[in-house]
Amino acid sequence: MSVIYVLDILGTFAFAVSGALVALDKKLDIFGVIIIAFVTAVGGGMLRDVLINAHPINWIGDLNYLYTIFTAVLFTFLFKSKIAYLSKTMFLFDTVGLGVFTLLGLEKGLSYNLHPIIALIMGMTSAVFGGVLRDVLTNKVPLIFEKEIYASACLAGGIIYLLVYQFTIIPENINFIISASVVIIIRAVAVKFNLELPKIKDDLFTKS
Amino acid sequence: MSVIYVLDILGTFAFAVSGALVALDKKLDIFGVIIIAFVTAVGGGMLRDVLINAHPINWIGDLNYLYTIFTAVLFTFLFKSKIAYLSKTMFLFDTVGLGVFTLLGLEKGLSYNLHPIIALIMGMTSAVFGGVLRDVLTNKVPLIFEKEIYASACLAGGIIYLLVYQFTIIPENINFIISASVVIIIRAVAVKFNLELPKIKDDLFTKS
Amino acid sequence: MSVIYVLDILGTFAFAVSGALVALDKKLDIFGVIIIAFVTAVGGGMLRDVLINAHPINWIGDLNYLYTIFTAVLFTFLFKSKIAYLSKTMFLFDTVGLGVFTLLGLEKGLSYNLHPIIALIMGMTSAVFGGVLRDVLTNKVPLIFEKEIYASACLAGGIIYLLVYQFTIIPENINFIISASVVIIIRAVAVKFNLELPKIKDDLFTKS
Repeated sequence: MSVIYVLDILGTFAFAVSGALVALDKKLDIFGVIIIAFVTAVGGGMLRDVLINAHPINWIGDLNYLYTIFTAVLFTFLFKSKIAYLSKTMFLFDTVGLGVFTLLGLEKGLSYNLHPIIALIMGMTSAVFGGVLRDVLTNKVPLIFEKEIYASACLAGGIIYLLVYQFTIIPENINFIISASVVIIIRAVAVKFNLELPKIKDDLFTKS
Repeated sequence: MSVIYVLDILGTFAFAVSGALVALDKKLDIFGVIIIAFVTAVGGGMLRDVLINAHPINWIGDLNYLYTIFTAVLFTFLFKSKIAYLSKTMFLFDTVGLGVFTLLGLEKGLSYNLHPIIALIMGMTSAVFGGVLRDVLTNKVPLIFEKEIYASACLAGGIIYLLVYQFTIIPENINFIISASVVIIIRAVAVKFNLELPKIKDDLFTKS
Repeated sequence: MSVIYVLDILGTFAFAVSGALVALDKKLDIFGVIIIAFVTAVGGGMLRDVLINAHPINWIGDLNYLYTIFTAVLFTFLFKSKIAYLSKTMFLFDTVGLGVFTLLGLEKGLSYNLHPIIALIMGMTSAVFGGVLRDVLTNKVPLIFEKEIYASACLAGGIIYLLVYQFTIIPENINFIISASVVIIIRAVAVKFNLELPKIKDDLFTKS
């Protein structure tokens, strides 16, 4: 669990930086930047915990999330001009966060005896809802709805986890690593090759 | 209860289709369409359950909501070009959903021993908040705030229910049908005749 | 507590009026005005109570909030044209609300045995989140992120409270008054002199 906890913190850091960058781009003041960084980083897990009645919720039960977010905001302020050069590192963290958050959320759902489908949705919620909140609060159509394969990577990784969990004797820790890697690889390949989910064309069904 | 459950599912279906149509219109990808359909259909009941601490919340406690939403999204994809022709049917479903959701929410509130005014608000929340969430997530001013009598139809039906409940011996099931019909009729008449609630004119109180 | 309760109600009234004014400006119908007034006035406390699992949440447990909001909406309709002349009074109420809500939220957090930092965040959430919700629902970038010192005033007052609470024997009621006054004074001075938090300039770190 200790490796996963480190990955969780790294993912939180990366999500917080991504929120801070969007907020800076929107010319928000320091407070706005902190709030957006905060909701981006812990918004998904917070919603998950409220929905499944898991109190204390994530950042209330573990202050390390807050400390990580403050550090990430400070980091963003200090290295703003260099983050462009760090973008590969940040993308790596962000993608790791996506994988880890998905699986942590899914496992938490299962530990609350939720139906696997619900646990899967909780995993995806943990991973993507922070970004949705970030975009709603900065008044944009949530990116998640428009960009390359993102939530679908979480879905794929979550399904792998559930299949391995149900039908094999592979230990949970190994399963976690495998499935999180699936999320990370799908996401990385999608960004590399600019893959998108198909959209429904307006005329797709109107011709015959 | 069985008839009401069927109406609940039909209403969920109609709300999910309405969400999917808005998402398609916004050119969201398949995932975005599913998410918007989902929050439109169950967002109101979800908020109600979180606020009154009714766990497991609606769609976590009954998977039929999820199955209904997936079916509705598939239906929307397949019959997108024909839904225009089905708009009367869809409007009927949607309006039935509005009535049924209002009364189900109100009854749930009463069953949690809430004050009738709070139960009334919970009924209206159940009925209208899904649409509000749909509009916030697709970055529009919520329709509910601007269109023909909608929440007010729910309010009227809810008040009828509470009056009958307090002052008569009419059984709850009959009361449910009567009050839901009030919502449906008011809403249908409002759309038919394009009725709107009055807005406060800028000069309403400035002249003397 | 009785004086504080009166201030709480006055703050709720002022926040509801501020919500109603924004909604009127957006040409929402009567229902929209009531809903926006409602979320502005109780949205912050509602979020706080959901996050710390304090049920029944604020407006469900005490109907006086609802009555206050209805009165505020009626007041806004009746005196819309005169509120410009009352703007100093309204600003006073609003600022008092900000101070009182911050400290009430913080004390509630402490009474639930939360870590002081979390309690501080709960105080700020109580004070500012209603305004954030108002702006999200009317499709604006939340004012809080862009205007003069607002959340920072709450932060300062909250920190004063915690320091006095930890390191002195000053009674809680006196501490409440002192710290709420700090919020009110900072906010009033900031508006008077149009003070803002610094923003991060685009070129702040790019020059060397």
